[in-house]
Amino acid sequence: MGRVVTFGEILLRLSTPRHERISQARQFDIIYGGTECNVAVSLAQFGHDATYVSAVPANDLGQAAINYVRQFGVDTGSILRQGRRLGAYFLEIGAGGRASKVVYDRADSSASEIKPGMIDWVRIFQGKDWFHFSGITCAISASAASVVEEAAVAAKKAGLTVSCDFNYRATLWSAEKGRQVMGPIVRNVDVAIGSGRDPVLQGLIGMDGNIPAPKRSAEAYRPFIEAAVQKLGFKKVALTVRDIYSSSRNTYAGVYYDGQGVAMSRTHDIDIVDRVGGGDGFTAGIVHGILAGFDRQHTVDFAAAAAALAHTIHGDFNLVSVDEVEAAAGSAGADVRR
Amino acid sequence: MGRVVTFGEILLRLSTPRHERISQARQFDIIYGGTECNVAVSLAQFGHDATYVSAVPANDLGQAAINYVRQFGVDTGSILRQGRRLGAYFLEIGAGGRASKVVYDRADSSASEIKPGMIDWVRIFQGKDWFHFSGITCAISASAASVVEEAAVAAKKAGLTVSCDFNYRATLWSAEKGRQVMGPIVRNVDVAIGSGRDPVLQGLIGMDGNIPAPKRSAEAYRPFIEAAVQKLGFKKVALTVRDIYSSSRNTYAGVYYDGQGVAMSRTHDIDIVDRVGGGDGFTAGIVHGILAGFDRQHTVDFAAAAAALAHTIHGDFNLVSVDEVEAAAGSAGADVRR
Amino acid sequence: MGRVVTFGEILLRLSTPRHERISQARQFDIIYGGTECNVAVSLAQFGHDATYVSAVPANDLGQAAINYVRQFGVDTGSILRQGRRLGAYFLEIGAGGRASKVVYDRADSSASEIKPGMIDWVRIFQGKDWFHFSGITCAISASAASVVEEAAVAAKKAGLTVSCDFNYRATLWSAEKGRQVMGPIVRNVDVAIGSGRDPVLQGLIGMDGNIPAPKRSAEAYRPFIEAAVQKLGFKKVALTVRDIYSSSRNTYAGVYYDGQGVAMSRTHDIDIVDRVGGGDGFTAGIVHGILAGFDRQHTVDFAAAAAALAHTIHGDFNLVSVDEVEAAAGSAGADVRR
Amino acid sequence: MGRVVTFGEILLRLSTPRHERISQARQFDIIYGGTECNVAVSLAQFGHDATYVSAVPANDLGQAAINYVRQFGVDTGSILRQGRRLGAYFLEIGAGGRASKVVYDRADSSASEIKPGMIDWVRIFQGKDWFHFSGITCAISASAASVVEEAAVAAKKAGLTVSCDFNYRATLWSAEKGRQVMGPIVRNVDVAIGSGRDPVLQGLIGMDGNIPAPKRSAEAYRPFIEAAVQKLGFKKVALTVRDIYSSSRNTYAGVYYDGQGVAMSRTHDIDIVDRVGGGDGFTAGIVHGILAGFDRQHTVDFAAAAAALAHTIHGDFNLVSVDEVEAAAGSAGADVRR
Amino acid sequence: MGRVVTFGEILLRLSTPRHERISQARQFDIIYGGTECNVAVSLAQFGHDATYVSAVPANDLGQAAINYVRQFGVDTGSILRQGRRLGAYFLEIGAGGRASKVVYDRADSSASEIKPGMIDWVRIFQGKDWFHFSGITCAISASAASVVEEAAVAAKKAGLTVSCDFNYRATLWSAEKGRQVMGPIVRNVDVAIGSGRDPVLQGLIGMDGNIPAPKRSAEAYRPFIEAAVQKLGFKKVALTVRDIYSSSRNTYAGVYYDGQGVAMSRTHDIDIVDRVGGGDGFTAGIVHGILAGFDRQHTVDFAAAAAALAHTIHGDFNLVSVDEVEAAAGSAGADVRR
Amino acid sequence: MGRVVTFGEILLRLSTPRHERISQARQFDIIYGGTECNVAVSLAQFGHDATYVSAVPANDLGQAAINYVRQFGVDTGSILRQGRRLGAYFLEIGAGGRASKVVYDRADSSASEIKPGMIDWVRIFQGKDWFHFSGITCAISASAASVVEEAAVAAKKAGLTVSCDFNYRATLWSAEKGRQVMGPIVRNVDVAIGSGRDPVLQGLIGMDGNIPAPKRSAEAYRPFIEAAVQKLGFKKVALTVRDIYSSSRNTYAGVYYDGQGVAMSRTHDIDIVDRVGGGDGFTAGIVHGILAGFDRQHTVDFAAAAAALAHTIHGDFNLVSVDEVEAAAGSAGADVRR
Repeated sequence: MGRVVTFGEILLRLSTPRHERISQARQFDIIYGGTECNVAVSLAQFGHDATYVSAVPANDLGQAAINYVRQFGVDTGSILRQGRRLGAYFLEIGAGGRASKVVYDRADSSASEIKPGMIDWVRIFQGKDWFHFSGITCAISASAASVVEEAAVAAKKAGLTVSCDFNYRATLWSAEKGRQVMGPIVRNVDVAIGSGRDPVLQGLIGMDGNIPAPKRSAEAYRPFIEAAVQKLGFKKVALTVRDIYSSSRNTYAGVYYDGQGVAMSRTHDIDIVDRVGGGDGFTAGIVHGILAGFDRQHTVDFAAAAAALAHTIHGDFNLVSVDEVEAAAGSAGADVRR
Repeated sequence: MGRVVTFGEILLRLSTPRHERISQARQFDIIYGGTECNVAVSLAQFGHDATYVSAVPANDLGQAAINYVRQFGVDTGSILRQGRRLGAYFLEIGAGGRASKVVYDRADSSASEIKPGMIDWVRIFQGKDWFHFSGITCAISASAASVVEEAAVAAKKAGLTVSCDFNYRATLWSAEKGRQVMGPIVRNVDVAIGSGRDPVLQGLIGMDGNIPAPKRSAEAYRPFIEAAVQKLGFKKVALTVRDIYSSSRNTYAGVYYDGQGVAMSRTHDIDIVDRVGGGDGFTAGIVHGILAGFDRQHTVDFAAAAAALAHTIHGDFNLVSVDEVEAAAGSAGADVRR
Repeated sequence: MGRVVTFGEILLRLSTPRHERISQARQFDIIYGGTECNVAVSLAQFGHDATYVSAVPANDLGQAAINYVRQFGVDTGSILRQGRRLGAYFLEIGAGGRASKVVYDRADSSASEIKPGMIDWVRIFQGKDWFHFSGITCAISASAASVVEEAAVAAKKAGLTVSCDFNYRATLWSAEKGRQVMGPIVRNVDVAIGSGRDPVLQGLIGMDGNIPAPKRSAEAYRPFIEAAVQKLGFKKVALTVRDIYSSSRNTYAGVYYDGQGVAMSRTHDIDIVDRVGGGDGFTAGIVHGILAGFDRQHTVDFAAAAAALAHTIHGDFNLVSVDEVEAAAGSAGADVRR
Repeated sequence: MGRVVTFGEILLRLSTPRHERISQARQFDIIYGGTECNVAVSLAQFGHDATYVSAVPANDLGQAAINYVRQFGVDTGSILRQGRRLGAYFLEIGAGGRASKVVYDRADSSASEIKPGMIDWVRIFQGKDWFHFSGITCAISASAASVVEEAAVAAKKAGLTVSCDFNYRATLWSAEKGRQVMGPIVRNVDVAIGSGRDPVLQGLIGMDGNIPAPKRSAEAYRPFIEAAVQKLGFKKVALTVRDIYSSSRNTYAGVYYDGQGVAMSRTHDIDIVDRVGGGDGFTAGIVHGILAGFDRQHTVDFAAAAAALAHTIHGDFNLVSVDEVEAAAGSAGADVRR
Repeated sequence: MGRVVTFGEILLRLSTPRHERISQARQFDIIYGGTECNVAVSLAQFGHDATYVSAVPANDLGQAAINYVRQFGVDTGSILRQGRRLGAYFLEIGAGGRASKVVYDRADSSASEIKPGMIDWVRIFQGKDWFHFSGITCAISASAASVVEEAAVAAKKAGLTVSCDFNYRATLWSAEKGRQVMGPIVRNVDVAIGSGRDPVLQGLIGMDGNIPAPKRSAEAYRPFIEAAVQKLGFKKVALTVRDIYSSSRNTYAGVYYDGQGVAMSRTHDIDIVDRVGGGDGFTAGIVHGILAGFDRQHTVDFAAAAAALAHTIHGDFNLVSVDEVEAAAGSAGADVRR
Repeated sequence: MGRVVTFGEILLRLSTPRHERISQARQFDIIYGGTECNVAVSLAQFGHDATYVSAVPANDLGQAAINYVRQFGVDTGSILRQGRRLGAYFLEIGAGGRASKVVYDRADSSASEIKPGMIDWVRIFQGKDWFHFSGITCAISASAASVVEEAAVAAKKAGLTVSCDFNYRATLWSAEKGRQVMGPIVRNVDVAIGSGRDPVLQGLIGMDGNIPAPKRSAEAYRPFIEAAVQKLGFKKVALTVRDIYSSSRNTYAGVYYDGQGVAMSRTHDIDIVDRVGGGDGFTAGIVHGILAGFDRQHTVDFAAAAAALAHTIHGDFNLVSVDEVEAAAGSAGADVRR
C-alpha cells in the first residue's frame, strides 16, 4: 500500500443532534475533522500508511483533536503545537427542504497562523509516495497558502505524486481571490479533484464544467477535463457530480480521467446521515484506486461508492474498509451482514 | 412588520425519542406548544411583534411553558396564571407505515377553564393589527369557545384583522358540534385557513373541498372557496393540500384566495422530522404574506414553503427566518450553507 | 385467542445509536430478543396466550433477558436457568448504501448447551394450540437441534399445530449442513414459513423459489409451494418477498398457501427504523391469521402489514396491536392519530 | 416464601435528569411506581409471590404502567382497566441544600375513581398470606378509601395478615382528615409501619413519636409503640427514623416491635441517588423479615439495610436481592463484587 | 421590587457531561452565561425587573444566547448585535480531588470589542434603580473597561445604586493590571462584593482579607471592610468565604457590612452539582436583600443560602425563588416537597 | 522519559449509566480497558513511551479496542489479532451502601488463548526500559500465565526492570492456585505492587499485611515488606491502603519501599466517579516516580495522588498529566482552574 501525507486545518465540529437548530440545542455532538484529515483517515482505513500534518494549540482541545485522529491509525506525530486556538464550526444537519447550515468560528486558528519554515517537509516526505492538500487550506490565510506551496514544491522535488481537491468555499474567499492564490500552486499538482461547478477551477480553466443531468456521460466531461489538463498541466483529473434533491437525499457520481481516457461511475442514490466529508471520501477513493493500480473504471466506481458510503456515517470520517466499498460499488447492496 | 395576537391553549408535549412506542420509552422529550402558540412563535421569527394569550397553572409547569415560549421572542406578559393543571399529550412520532399517535391528557386544563371576562382584550388589542385563533380552542370547552368569541368580537371592534384556522380534531368534538359552536364565531373572521377535508368547514359551507391529486389546481379549488366567502363572509381564504404517503413522507401544497383571485403553490415533497406544527407554519406564512404585502402567488408560495420547513424541525415551532423560507420556496434548495 | 409456545435462543443485542459504526460508538443500546421470542411477543400483543421457552444463565444478564420479555406479557415461567453465558451480538444499523452489520458473540451460550430431557415438553404443551421454532435454533448446536426435534415430536403428539421459520443464517452453518439437520425435523411441521431464496428450503425442495419482481404473483409462487407441500408434507406455506433498495428502504410482500389456494399481499414500501425482527412480524401475522380464522388473502395481507410495521419500531419486537396492523394493511395510512 | 397482595395507585413519574429544575428540562426520565407497587416489586425481588392490584386507564400509558411493573415479576393480572387517566407527577431530584420537589398531577386518576365492588377481593385473596396498603390510597379519594376498607375487611376475613404504611402526604389531605378516614380502617391492621413524626399516626395515638437523635434507642421508642398497640390494636409496629442533612445525604434507621420486644437497627449513612421509594424498601424488608421468620433484630436490620439500598437505585423500585440486603446489613460493605 | 441593569459578556459554555475530561468527551452540554448575566437572571427569579446589556454577534450563536437568557424573564432588548464572534469556554466539571478546568476561547469576542458610545446608557437607565458590573468585564479589553466606566458614571448621574463584584481571574489579567484599571472605576461603586482573597481588592485596599477558618467571625472581617470603605468609598461591602475541600464539596459563608454593622451568615456545607455561578448567586442575594429592605443579618443569610443553592443547579443560572432561598437559609432543610 | 511495555488482556467494559442496575439498563456505556492497558495509558499521559501488548480477535470489536487505546498515544502495533472473541464484562457502578457489581463474560477470549511463542518479545523489548504485568493475566489461563513467564524472563534477559501488580481476583482463581502459578513467575520481578490484604501475596510471604487504620504508618508496614523482599527477592515494593466507607467514598494511601527505606503518603478522601482503574493509577504513579528519579516520599505521594485522581474520571484510564498529579499530591487542591 502507499505512504500518503496530507496537510491542512483540523477543526472542532460542534453539531446539533436530531437535526435541531442551533437555537434549540442543549447539546452539541463533538467531531474533529477537516478535509485533508478526512482523506488521511479514509486512506488509513483502506490500509495505507497515512500521515496528517497540521497545527493545533497546546491546550486540551488541540490534544483532543490529535487523539481523535490517531485513534483511526493516522500518524499525527508531525502535527505542530502552536498558535492560540483551535478553529471551530457549528453545524446544523438539515433535513428535507431545510439546508444544513454552518456557522464558522475559525479566525485566528493555529492552522491559519502557520508559516513557511515551520514544518520540516524534507523529513516528512522521506520515504513517502503521495502528498495531498485542498483549496480550503489555501483560503484560510496567506501564510497557510504559502505553506501549501512550500509543501507542494518540496513534495514534487522529493518525487511524490501531488493531489489537490479544489473544494471552493464561498465563505472563505471569492472565486477571483481563489484563482489568484491557487493558480501558481496548482502548477505542482499531478492529480486534480474537483467539481465541474467549482468557480476557482472554472476560472483557472476558463470553461464551465457543469453539465445538466440528462446530458451527462464520460464523454460529456471530456472537453472540460482536456482544458484542465492543457491549461494547468494535470496528469489525472477526477470530478464529482452531485445533485441535491433535499438535505436528506442526493445523487452522487464520479468522473475520472487517468491520462488516457475518461470513465464515469454509476449514479448513487444517497439517503444522507451526515453529508460532511462526502467529497473527501471520493478523494480518498481516487487516491486508493491509483495507488492500488485499479483501471480507470474501477477507480471511479470505487471512489463514487466510497463517497456514497461516507454520507451514511455520522461525522466527517469515512470509516469503511476496501471490502465494504467494493460491495457498495457492485450490486451486492445493503442486505444485513449476519 | 405587524403586531399580532394569538389566543389558545399551550400543552406540555411529551414525545418518545427514536420513534419509540410509549410502552418502550424510558425518556420523553419535552416540548411546550399549541397551534396558536406555534403561529405566534413563527411570526416572531419572521420579525413580527407577536403576543400569545393563554392560561397556565401557577406551578412549575406553567412557568416552564411560559419560559419555553418567551425564549423565542414572543410576548407572554398577558398569559393568565389560573386553574389546576397544564394540559398534556403524549406523542409517538411514527415512521414509514406506522402512524404517529397521540394520547391526550388535557381534561380540566387551565386553558379549558378560562372564562369570559378574565382577559382584558381591550388592553391587549391596543395598537395591534391582527388576532388569530383556531377551532381547537373552540373545542376544548364551552367557556373557552365563549372567550374566543369574546376576543374575536373585541378584535373586530378594535379594528384588527381576524384569522381562524379550522383545525378539526375528531378526538375533541364531532363535526356537528363543531359546526354549531364555530358557526357564530367565524362570522367575525376575515381570513380563514383550513383544509378542503375539514368536516367543520365543509359542514358550514355545505360542500366537499377535497379534490383528488390529479385534478388539483388553483381553479379547481375556486368553487369551494367562493362558497366559503359567500356563506361565511371571509375576505381571504387559504387551504392546505396534504397527501400522506407514509409517516415519513408527505406532500404539501397551499391554495390562497386573496379576495380577487386564487393561486396555488408548487407541491413540496417532505421528509418528515416532526409533523406537529406543520399547518401552523402554513398559517404563519399566510399571515406574514398578507402583513408584508406579498401578492397572492408569493403569499401562498411562502406559506407552503414555511409549512414544508416546519416538518423538518424537531418540535412544534417553525424556527426559520424569512430568508430561509424564501430560499425553500425558490429553487435554491438544500445545499449546505457554508 | 390461541395458546402458543415458541422455543429458541434469546440474545443480548447491543446496537450502536445513530447508525454509528462499532469503532465510533461510546454507547450501545440494549435489546434482548431472538426470532422465536420475537414471534411470542408479537402474538402476545395480538392478544394470544404466548409462552416462550429458552435457557439463560443464572446471572444478572439472564434475569434481565427474562424481565425484558415478560414486560410484554409473555409467559417466561418455563425458561431454564442453566449454562455459562447469554449469547450476544453487536449490531450496526446501516443506512443508505451501507449494510447493517452483525458481529456475533454467541458461542457456548446457555441456549446452545441445552440438551434433550432438560425441558418438560409434556407439561408445557398441556392445553396449548401451537408450537413454533426456527432454523436458527437448529443451527446453534447439535444438542439444540435435538431439543427442537424432541419438542416438535412432543407437540405433534399433544395435538398442537407446529410451525417453522427456515430463517437461514450463513454465519451459523452451510446450506448443506442445514438441509441435513432440518430435513428430519421439518417432517413434523404443519406450517412452513420462509423465503423463496432460503438455501435450506430450496435444497430440501430441490427448486429455486426466487422470482424476479416483474414476474411475481400468487400464481408464480405456486410451483415452489406445491413442491414444498409434496416433498415436505407441509399443510400451509407462507413466503416472504423482500427487495432491498438500500439499508433505509426495502419493499416487502407476502405469499400464503392455506392448503387450498395461494394469495399474495400488496407490496409495502418500507422506510426502515430497525430491520431486525421484520420477518418475525410476518410469522406472527401468519400464525394470528390462522388462529383468528382469517381467509388466505386476509391472512397474508395482515402478515405483510405486520412485517412492514415491525420495520418501523426500534428493537426486535413488533409492539403493535391487531387494530394497528389492520389499519396498515388497509389504505387507512399513516395520518397522525389524534 | 409468602404470597402477598398490595393495593394502591400507580403513577407516571416524570423526573428531570441531572438534578435539573423543571424549567430547565428538555427530557423527563420515565418511571412508573407508587408506594404499594414499590412494596410488591421489592417483595418479588426477595422471592415472594407478589400481586399488585390497581386501576389504570385503557390507553397506552395504562398499558405501559402494567408492562413496567410486570417486568419485575409481579402479578398484574388483577389490575383494572377503567377510568380516564393515569395519575402523574413531576419530580426534581434535589441536591445538597436544594430539596427534591414534586408537582402532582394526579386528580381524576383511574385509581382515585375506583369504587367498592369493582374488585373481586375474595378471588384475589384466595391462597394468599398478606395484604398491604398505605395511607396514600386512603387519601386520594373517598371512594378509594372505601375500597381500602373493603379490602382490609375481606383480607382479615380470608385470614391474611394486614399491614399498613401510614405514609402521610400533606399535599393530599390534612392530618385531621387523615385521622378521620384512617381511624376505622386501621382497626383491621396487624402490622403498622410509619414514622414517629407521622401526624396521622400521632393523632390517632395522641402522642408525639419524634425522638431527638441523641436520645434514640429501642427503649426510647417503646412508649410510643405501646400506645399504638393499646389504642389501635396493632400486633407489630415498625418505625422509620430518618435525619435529613441534605438532599444528597440522609441517615436512616429502623425500630421494630414484634409483639414482644423492641429492636433498633444501626443508623445508615446514605448517599442518595433517588430517595423516592426508600420507605417502601423498609416496608418490604419488614414484611420479608416476618414472612421469613427472622427474629426482631434481624428483621429490623434487614429492613433498614433494604431502605438504605433503595436510596441508591434510580427509580422507585428496590431492585435488590435478599443476599444483597444481608450484605448491606452486615459490615461486608461496598467493595466491588468482581 | 427593584429595576436592575447589569452589563458584561455572555459566553457560550461547553461543558463535558459526567465529569468527563475534554479528551474523552463526545458531547458538550450547552449553557450560555456570564457573571453579570447570571446576576440578572437570578434577580428576575426573585421577582425583580432585570435588564441585561451585552454584545453578541449577528449570527445564530448570538441569537441563541439571547434566547437562552430571555427565557428566564430578563429584558434582552438592549443587547447589541455587533462584532465577529461569541466568546466561548470549555469546562470540565471536576470531582473529588480533581479540579474543574476551564479552557477559554474568548479572544476577539463581540463583547470585548464594545466601545464607548455604542450603548445609550441614558435611555437604558431611565426609571432604573440599580446598575451592576464585575471585574471580569473590566479585564476582557481596554475598551470594555472604558464602557464599564462610562456606564458607572452614567448610572451614578442617573441616581442608580452601583454595585461591583471584583471577581478576579488570573487568566485574564495580573493583579497589578487589575488594580490600575479598576481603581478609577470603583470610585463610582456603592456596593462592593468580593472575597477577602481577591488580589485586586487586596491591592486597592492594601490589606489581606483572608482569615483562617477558626478565626472567622463578623468582627474578624471588620478591619478589612473598614479599610475598603475608607479607601474606596464603598457604602456597603459583602464578602464571600469559601473553603474548598474537594471539587465535590465546599463550604460557603457570607459577610456583609450594611454601612452600620457587620453580619456573618452560617457556613453552608455544599455538595456541588455545578460550581460556576455560585458567587453570582451570592451577589444577587445581596442585591435582593438591599432592594427588599432586609436587615443586615437577613441580607447575608439570604445571600449565602442563595449561593449554596446555586451550586446545586446545572448551569450558571440560580433558578430558585425567594421562598426556596428563605427555606434554605433557615433550618427547614432538604426534605422532599411533596 | 522511560520506554515501558505492558502485557495483558483488554476487555470490553459495558457499564450501566446513572448507577443503574443491569436489569434496568437500556444503554451501556462502552469502555475498553484492562489493568496493564490502564497502566500503559497512564504512563503515556505522563509523557513516557508506552507499548501495550495483547491479543484481540480480528473483528470490529478487536479493532475498536485497539482504536480506543491508541487514541491516548500508546503504541498498539504489537497487539496480536487472533482467537475468537474479545473478553467482556458488565459493570454496575454502585452508590452509597450498594457495591459495584461485575458480571464477567471473558471465557475463551483472544487473550486467554495466547500461547508461548506467539509474541516476539526480543523484538518488542529492544530499546525498552521496563516491563509490567499483573496477576490477572496469570489467572485468565494456564497458557496466558506461561506467556507472562516467557515475557518476564525475556525482559530480565534484555535488562529491563520488571514490575508486577498482584491484583488478586477471587472470581478468577483461588488464593492457593494463585500462589502456585505466580510463585515461579514473581522470581523475575524487581518492583512488586500489591495490597497488604492480597491473599496471593500474603500466601507467598506467609504473613498478613493488613494493618488496621489507627496503627498504620510507614514503619508499621516494614515487617511485611521486609518479608516480601527476603522471600521473593523484590528490590522495591509498593502497597496500596484502601478503606471503603461506601461505594461513593473511599480513602486511599500508598506505602513504598525503595530498597532503602519505607515512606507512606497522606490518606486521600475520595468521592468516587469510577473506581475501576484506581489501582492502576497507583501503579503507573510508582513506575513514573522511579523512572523520573523521585525520592521515595515523592514517589509514593505522586502514586497515591494519581490513584486518587483515577477515581474521579469516567472509565478505566487515568487521563491526567504529571502537573495535575503533582497539584493533587500537594495541598493546591481542587479550586476551578480558570
